[in-house]
Amino acid sequence: MAKPSKTLQDLFHETLKDIYFAEKKILASLPKMAKSAQTMELREAFEKHEQDTEGQVERLDRVFSLIEQPARGKRCEAINGIADEAKDIMKEFKQSPALDAGLIASAQAVEHYEIARYGTLKAWAEELGLEEAVELLDQTLEEEKRTDVTLTQLALGAANQEAQRAAE
Amino acid sequence: MAKPSKTLQDLFHETLKDIYFAEKKILASLPKMAKSAQTMELREAFEKHEQDTEGQVERLDRVFSLIEQPARGKRCEAINGIADEAKDIMKEFKQSPALDAGLIASAQAVEHYEIARYGTLKAWAEELGLEEAVELLDQTLEEEKRTDVTLTQLALGAANQEAQRAAE
Repeated sequence: MAKPSKTLQDLFHETLKDIYFAEKKILASLPKMAKSAQTMELREAFEKHEQDTEGQVERLDRVFSLIEQPARGKRCEAINGIADEAKDIMKEFKQSPALDAGLIASAQAVEHYEIARYGTLKAWAEELGLEEAVELLDQTLEEEKRTDVTLTQLALGAANQEAQRAAE
Repeated sequence: MAKPSKTLQDLFHETLKDIYFAEKKILASLPKMAKSAQTMELREAFEKHEQDTEGQVERLDRVFSLIEQPARGKRCEAINGIADEAKDIMKEFKQSPALDAGLIASAQAVEHYEIARYGTLKAWAEELGLEEAVELLDQTLEEEKRTDVTLTQLALGAANQEAQRAAE
């Protein structure tokens, strides 16, 4: 007998586990990034992001329960790779005035990964008629986009100039 | 004697090597994704993306020469992770009507990684006064954003419905 074909529901569930793992990983990384930040503005931005991320994990818990599945992550190599690169930056640019610019760049790579995944999950939830999930995923998607804008403002506002000033 | 502190120029160069590796990896992955695609529209979108990517690598070659460095990549774990996830989707959803939806999701994760990196590189090039590099990086950034929009349209236009129809 042929194995039953996988469905969009399966794809949604797999991707939900992927982003759940990613959010937990981000939650573990943010305190280190906040501690590394050279300016108070960036440290506060990472601390705010950590609070947001806790709320995002709770929303994912609710989406899992909407599809009657246990809230469980699945190893996500993409976020592990992004996190490894952030760790390299923290190490290699530890004493450098360019550190904050590098931290912001790492955080924006994280944000864009999340924007891609939540955008996809929201579209699939719509297709699957999971209205409450659409609402929850959209809240997080908009939050991620706002965080990305905040990080761009911090980069353009100070971190990049600071990084460059030291080189002059 | 203290080691000289790393600068924004170093960060720019490191990140350029990162995205150079990523573009080459994407170039190697796209033919497999095109071959896996179930619809002609998606296959053509991946083929178009492959052509764009070749042009993007050439632009990066020029940016390397502007900063008088050899065009050389540095292993980028983020793109390796994203590519591994795409491979898993191709394998696990091989016979599934949800395959195209999964392929599009993978491609959008790639696009967002690139959007994050090119956005950052462009901002740093501005800070470093590398006007010609700003222009080149901006061209690619806008191209990546357009590709992301095209992929969203393909997903919403057909692939997600197709994925869902089979489940009904």
